Amino acid sequence: MKAFDQAVRTVQFLSVDAVEQANAGHPGTPMALAGIGVEIFTRHLRYQPQDPVWPNRDRFVLSCGHASMLLYSLLHLAGYELSLDELKHFRQWGSLTPGHPECGYHTPGVETTTGPLGQGISNAVGFALASKMAGARLNTADSKIIDYRVFVLASDGDLMEGIASEASSIAGHLKLDNLVVVYDDNHITIDGKTEITFSEDVGKRFEAYGWFVQKVDGHNPAQVARALDAAVAEGQRPSLIVARTHIAIGAPTKQDTPAAHGAPLGKAEVEATKKAAGWPLTPTFLVPPEAYEPFRERTSALAPEYDAWKKTVAGLKGERAALWKALSERQVPKNIFETLLAATDNKADATRSHSSKIQQKAAELVPALAGGSADLAESVKTTIKGGGDVGPGEFAGRNLHFGIREHAMGAIVNALALSGFFIPYGSTFLIFSDYMRPAIRLAGLMKTQSLFVYSHDSVFLGEDGPTHQPVEQLSSLRLIPNLDVVRPADAFECAAAWSHALERREGPTALVLTRHKIPALERAAGFDPARMRDGAYVLADSERPDLVIIATGSEVHLALEARLILEKKGKRVRVVSAPCWQAFERLPVEKQNAVLATPARRAVIEAGSTGLWRGVAGLDGIVIGIDHFGASAPWERIAEEWGFTGALVAERLLAFLGT
Amino acid sequence: MKAFDQAVRTVQFLSVDAVEQANAGHPGTPMALAGIGVEIFTRHLRYQPQDPVWPNRDRFVLSCGHASMLLYSLLHLAGYELSLDELKHFRQWGSLTPGHPECGYHTPGVETTTGPLGQGISNAVGFALASKMAGARLNTADSKIIDYRVFVLASDGDLMEGIASEASSIAGHLKLDNLVVVYDDNHITIDGKTEITFSEDVGKRFEAYGWFVQKVDGHNPAQVARALDAAVAEGQRPSLIVARTHIAIGAPTKQDTPAAHGAPLGKAEVEATKKAAGWPLTPTFLVPPEAYEPFRERTSALAPEYDAWKKTVAGLKGERAALWKALSERQVPKNIFETLLAATDNKADATRSHSSKIQQKAAELVPALAGGSADLAESVKTTIKGGGDVGPGEFAGRNLHFGIREHAMGAIVNALALSGFFIPYGSTFLIFSDYMRPAIRLAGLMKTQSLFVYSHDSVFLGEDGPTHQPVEQLSSLRLIPNLDVVRPADAFECAAAWSHALERREGPTALVLTRHKIPALERAAGFDPARMRDGAYVLADSERPDLVIIATGSEVHLALEARLILEKKGKRVRVVSAPCWQAFERLPVEKQNAVLATPARRAVIEAGSTGLWRGVAGLDGIVIGIDHFGASAPWERIAEEWGFTGALVAERLLAFLGT
Repeated sequence: MKAFDQAVRTVQFLSVDAVEQANAGHPGTPMALAGIGVEIFTRHLRYQPQDPVWPNRDRFVLSCGHASMLLYSLLHLAGYELSLDELKHFRQWGSLTPGHPECGYHTPGVETTTGPLGQGISNAVGFALASKMAGARLNTADSKIIDYRVFVLASDGDLMEGIASEASSIAGHLKLDNLVVVYDDNHITIDGKTEITFSEDVGKRFEAYGWFVQKVDGHNPAQVARALDAAVAEGQRPSLIVARTHIAIGAPTKQDTPAAHGAPLGKAEVEATKKAAGWPLTPTFLVPPEAYEPFRERTSALAPEYDAWKKTVAGLKGERAALWKALSERQVPKNIFETLLAATDNKADATRSHSSKIQQKAAELVPALAGGSADLAESVKTTIKGGGDVGPGEFAGRNLHFGIREHAMGAIVNALALSGFFIPYGSTFLIFSDYMRPAIRLAGLMKTQSLFVYSHDSVFLGEDGPTHQPVEQLSSLRLIPNLDVVRPADAFECAAAWSHALERREGPTALVLTRHKIPALERAAGFDPARMRDGAYVLADSERPDLVIIATGSEVHLALEARLILEKKGKRVRVVSAPCWQAFERLPVEKQNAVLATPARRAVIEAGSTGLWRGVAGLDGIVIGIDHFGASAPWERIAEEWGFTGALVAERLLAFLGT
Repeated sequence: MKAFDQAVRTVQFLSVDAVEQANAGHPGTPMALAGIGVEIFTRHLRYQPQDPVWPNRDRFVLSCGHASMLLYSLLHLAGYELSLDELKHFRQWGSLTPGHPECGYHTPGVETTTGPLGQGISNAVGFALASKMAGARLNTADSKIIDYRVFVLASDGDLMEGIASEASSIAGHLKLDNLVVVYDDNHITIDGKTEITFSEDVGKRFEAYGWFVQKVDGHNPAQVARALDAAVAEGQRPSLIVARTHIAIGAPTKQDTPAAHGAPLGKAEVEATKKAAGWPLTPTFLVPPEAYEPFRERTSALAPEYDAWKKTVAGLKGERAALWKALSERQVPKNIFETLLAATDNKADATRSHSSKIQQKAAELVPALAGGSADLAESVKTTIKGGGDVGPGEFAGRNLHFGIREHAMGAIVNALALSGFFIPYGSTFLIFSDYMRPAIRLAGLMKTQSLFVYSHDSVFLGEDGPTHQPVEQLSSLRLIPNLDVVRPADAFECAAAWSHALERREGPTALVLTRHKIPALERAAGFDPARMRDGAYVLADSERPDLVIIATGSEVHLALEARLILEKKGKRVRVVSAPCWQAFERLPVEKQNAVLATPARRAVIEAGSTGLWRGVAGLDGIVIGIDHFGASAPWERIAEEWGFTGALVAERLLAFLGT
């Protein structure tokens, strides 16, 4: 058997054996795609396993993450630090081989966490875009230091998901010719044949998006190789290769059946399959030495290019060297907080407007900052002035236009962050965070520095009414692990919010902003601005307070107004502004208790769901919030009707305290 | 001017005047689409304004809900109970004319709440399907009592959203020839021209989905009329009419500009526009009497059909009459709870398996129950056995195959509920509730009886790992107003959960089920099963308890096990099973306090986010949960590692109580 074929068989049976040993997993797809996977890794992908984060490596994305053993097998053969022993612990506690590929686990060579369908292919669009955007800023005509390609394996499930439609439309629009997607057209889903629900002409759909579409027999190596070559050669459009495959190919009774999708083949079927393939029954996890050969040849052949690349980068000079450093290290000046604060004009305004001005300054200081909006740039005010637009074939700009495609925006932002050269942001109204929630969750899971800028953050957006008025979104975002949610109350807090987001490398941050104008907060003389970075801090105080009012964003000034009224009635009241509760909860408990004047009684004011805040207020506290849908009316009327004025808040707090 | 043209102008200037008066809203799209709207209402749509919920009326869906004034103007002219005075209070507190159309407000003639883009067109697919499914069961060859059509106006934003791609693919697959979508191809979005982000060939894309596609000049009435006729005549495919229009047509400086999209035209521009159109400047909100004429003619012409329909339905006999009643009233037997309970086999099993068996019984008793899964029917176990499949041109079945398209599933389920003939359900893994969250929210806002069945409800799904393991989903669903989240702990609670979902007319219900097998709960002799319907109830008790443990689903048996250990250590412990906290919170406070033995200290156990439960436990309580992402391993190992065994729970509770 030729080394290439040995490698293919090895990938197939490593996958089968691992699923069998775990007694869980998906054997059929790795079997079907092994040939295409080996073809990509040994003849098309540019990578260096000893430097798995080489910035100019081609990206390989397994969008159908359930076929994870395919990826793990390929990475093992390719020489990444992923031992056979790890493969033998597929899906086990603490292994580097979880059920779905996770880049957060630092499995070397895994580019992005996939499994929730549609996300991987959408990340891939983001990687392809990242390559173009970084390249446009860093390359010269005769020295390209960033020009990588992205290869994707995607399933029918990926292509049915709406997020993939959104991302594919964007990819076609932008003419991302460095993107090659192989569609595993196996006619089988968990519930049966795809024909029970998926009869569209996928190729024609992608042509409509502006893609270059080819169809091949996925088990004919020559056809696959030719199509991949043609895709790589295509210089105008992203490529879709529709590869007709047979799930669990070679399994005598389970080939082409849903039975091979999500369950082990079973001992008898494994034996029969190995016999039919002329593969030894034992040992399991067999890797003939020749199987490594084509991978070794590939990486050796790529070594000169890699060495040359390193030399080129080491030799960069002047402005280009500085930009390389700024992007590749995602540089943020050490004094970013102080600088943004100094540039802040603290007057009454909507926090979306404050944020916008601060963002301009941030964009000057942080070349890696780039992003865009889902058709709400004018409303959320997130355009980088003078930053230039990204458009079809035009990638030197820093402003992206995602169209009305929030979910793809989330996945693309995540990939821009994973690419290592950007601190990317995506913006829309807070209500539409629901449209992109799975992508936000993955940002949390992958710990990417993705920024999400959301305005129109409460019922106080007014006339657009309940379909557009967030109520539960602030709290439901706070529930996502690793996501920091920052809701600033004035210009100063906006400056703190932006520096928090820019400096925080270990996860995504959401900035949550008002549509309506709110007052600038008064702060005591001698106020230390650094306190704003604690997530929650004392804004106005009384000695030995009876009551601590905790508030966020547009409700902080209501707390201050209510405090004045309460003080006149003889109550001693502290007001705590809490722009980022997650940051506050990371402080030592003693520090938290000091800010909250524990055991003083607590009130919380936020124009949204009360549930999470009840845990802060305690059973003997009060939460003033909104647990029902909004209403269509001018915001002042809504505030009056639902008790969100200083006087009405004071009234409720007096009743609560007992007058 | 002809009456038709008068009507068109009236719609245009009612919209312009209302936006001007509200000083907020979207004038440009109603101006552009007025002609198409009048054409549909006066020559194609079948409806009776005096009976706005006539079951066989054609549905009109304004998917681009921001153009709400178009709909309100048409409804007014058509004779629905929507007065000029309501139009004058556009977007004001308490009016029937909110910023986006809301069916929950019972604005007569508004079929579904639209505004979040993509939802309306996806609802429309559901309406078209509902017509086909109800018709297939109720019609005979010579007596069709349900065979309505669905007309949709959709914007570029609708067609960019992933949910619309999913739903359109389903519509093509199912050959929903009673669906007619007019795409308002105006080349303008909020951020500028659509060409900055949307260059795909929309018509070709819809052809790929299997649609009949026509292109027209949207301002050429003859072309529009011919295309609508051809669409209605098409007997195999859903129809897309790409109508090239000009936003704010006739506005001298704002036509074809983003400025006309989301802001009033302004006094000068309004005057100039009216002058150019030969329309009086005053009075505003002018409706010439002739403008009503074409609508009156239309409804008069339709009256005989309407009367005949009523006669036919009144004359139904036998089985067909019974089925009519069962579907049109969405009948649920009064004793459904007792019947399901009696049919329940209370043994150790996964709650998804219990639920599945109970669902079979429910399907026998409730003919209106119909639904399907997003390619996880085999895993969530929601197929109605013997219910028959819905497929292309085959609509008599009760089992739907949504494909891997969760978001469209949500919107289609909502429309099936709105259609009035179904208690519909959609099923997938709990983690993928994130993919369909905007549709779930709209179910809450519209108060539809949509059922969402979610299995694999915690990290205990095991090997699939963190991408598939819900952590924050239970809590984030509970945050959605009007949504009841029910997480049963054994077969009996599954029976209570299903009867809750079937009997609850005032909003959506989510059933949340385990993948893994859990024990049947022991209950004291004399236990009153009706207590399970309270949402939370005492499962095991001690006199004057020191501690009340509240638990849900798969953690209830851990609470019982921990209780036995604690009792041996001399602690008095009550265990409360809390399958539906929202239902419990609707009980009188005294009743809640009795169940919780207030002021006993509280512990909560749930394998998910702790945030919401902290408000229940109080500051001196404890919540045992999971606030980080999951892990890929067999579930027993995860339980051991993270303290979810009876012994480990007891240990933590002893430490908490102080031993």
